[in-house]
Amino acid sequence: MRAVVLHSHGGPEVLTIEEVADPVPGPDEVLVQVAATAVNRADLLQRMGLYPDPRKAQPEIPGLEFAGTVAGVGARVTMWRPGDRVMGIEAGGGYAERIAVHERQLLAVPAGIDVVDAAAIPEVFLTAWDALVVQGGLTSGRWALVHAGASGVGTAAIQIAKAIGARVAVTCSAGKADLCRALGADVVLLRSPHAWLDDARVAVPAGFDTILDVIGGDEVDRNLQAVAQRGTIVQVGLMGGGSTKVNVGLLLTKRAHWVGTTLRTRPLEEKVAVTRRFAAEILPLFDTGRLRPVIDRRYSLSEVADAHRLMETNANAGKILLVM
Amino acid sequence: MRAVVLHSHGGPEVLTIEEVADPVPGPDEVLVQVAATAVNRADLLQRMGLYPDPRKAQPEIPGLEFAGTVAGVGARVTMWRPGDRVMGIEAGGGYAERIAVHERQLLAVPAGIDVVDAAAIPEVFLTAWDALVVQGGLTSGRWALVHAGASGVGTAAIQIAKAIGARVAVTCSAGKADLCRALGADVVLLRSPHAWLDDARVAVPAGFDTILDVIGGDEVDRNLQAVAQRGTIVQVGLMGGGSTKVNVGLLLTKRAHWVGTTLRTRPLEEKVAVTRRFAAEILPLFDTGRLRPVIDRRYSLSEVADAHRLMETNANAGKILLVM
Repeated sequence: MRAVVLHSHGGPEVLTIEEVADPVPGPDEVLVQVAATAVNRADLLQRMGLYPDPRKAQPEIPGLEFAGTVAGVGARVTMWRPGDRVMGIEAGGGYAERIAVHERQLLAVPAGIDVVDAAAIPEVFLTAWDALVVQGGLTSGRWALVHAGASGVGTAAIQIAKAIGARVAVTCSAGKADLCRALGADVVLLRSPHAWLDDARVAVPAGFDTILDVIGGDEVDRNLQAVAQRGTIVQVGLMGGGSTKVNVGLLLTKRAHWVGTTLRTRPLEEKVAVTRRFAAEILPLFDTGRLRPVIDRRYSLSEVADAHRLMETNANAGKILLVM
Repeated sequence: MRAVVLHSHGGPEVLTIEEVADPVPGPDEVLVQVAATAVNRADLLQRMGLYPDPRKAQPEIPGLEFAGTVAGVGARVTMWRPGDRVMGIEAGGGYAERIAVHERQLLAVPAGIDVVDAAAIPEVFLTAWDALVVQGGLTSGRWALVHAGASGVGTAAIQIAKAIGARVAVTCSAGKADLCRALGADVVLLRSPHAWLDDARVAVPAGFDTILDVIGGDEVDRNLQAVAQRGTIVQVGLMGGGSTKVNVGLLLTKRAHWVGTTLRTRPLEEKVAVTRRFAAEILPLFDTGRLRPVIDRRYSLSEVADAHRLMETNANAGKILLVM
């Protein structure tokens, strides 16, 4: 099969496409013929050598998600049959024509969604839902703050917050405000030159019950100021840097929670548990049209370097797909 | 009744004893004839004007806990009768001969424990249990790290961790190591001149599932290094300072939780809930002798200034009581 293989780490030029052996599914695994994968921030870090595949799989094929059709099943597989449309997350190996995944880690592609477009769903909707709802305790009526509202995770988070009856504010740059509003954001806080914290205090004086932060850096201190009494800050990424000065007193007096989370490093039992709960709670909202993947651009696999370059400019709004 | 009243804030000399009106219990409240109260760090902060009573009660009487006998009950009280031995926490008013408290916030004094000594139980055992178990998820088999192991909260935390089948390491100064070991600490990490973090890595290589920290300051960074994958740091105090540089990357890669907590500011429904659960899960362990209050010294109420001075030296091991 064709796959993107990393023989060294560095700029987008290290992403080389070559023929590698097909994965062989184990007895509980499904072999998926991948229709499309998508680019994630973590892929850029992995390419630069900063975020290795925790499975240490060789050859090193990046790619944290995929959508496609079932090409084969292991002897004990009961949930899927060849031809079924499936999607899912994995710790790596998504940038390839085929991938083998435990059957309980797979999700059915929602009926109304093209199998290629479905590759824009798993990573960001699982991440946003897990961060907001599972880790962050967001419910109807409560207020969420989502940083980078026009990012893949951001566009998923806005939709999920609204779908469950919560209220949501986002931070974003001016050019992306309209997209965030169109997706349902109740409050759009411009990141620059405005001080979003001041605007947030006017819009949501009691503070945010759940903050989804992919940025870190200077936002950390502002998050602690913006979080509500007994609120939760869910740290999903650190695009803005990881080492920062913190006023721990705010954590104490607000009785706040600050939670670090990643999907990639979770063991099988946790990935399966979160996937099955997502299938029950969130997947039906794609069938009803309440949720939809937000796609910025579709590249062919051979254009993978250009796809990485686009994400590095932060110009995208929504997901960048790689079509096989 | 006699009470310690704060007319101004400052050193121990502002603690003045005078006659004030008895509290009048509401229909759901119990009037307690206080046998003893105890000194807490928060009392020192309140005396200095740094930690006001959230109820803004006047006259300003400090004191977060008490033990005594029921002197009277409101019209709707069903749980207690005059003469019952009770103890509990309140947001203030403990440094007085009588206090009125909601009946569901009271705990029975365990059978084998003197009513004066019982004043050493509520604040530190509730705080330690809530931090370790309720907030921190400590269970049998897991490892706790308790900073300031010989403090009131520390001595309670060691006993609770052992009583539920967990393993516990403490940090303390050399002179208090024997007390911590006698209470059941599996590992004693000397705070100085040793670097406790290095010793902790040798003793508990996988890190601590739950860290109870009353110190903050420089310990914050070390806590993030010492916490286990998916572990929880419970921040109960900030004796060492609140503003500090933090490596948020560790929170993320460990998928750790960092929780700020206080008992004092909780609304009635939360105080009642935690008190009733404590009554079910922890109070029976005093009856069996598995848990016991650790008392450093008993002062009379008129010696309240000396009691504060003792705590300010950090020389105490266990609780400092004020006997009416």
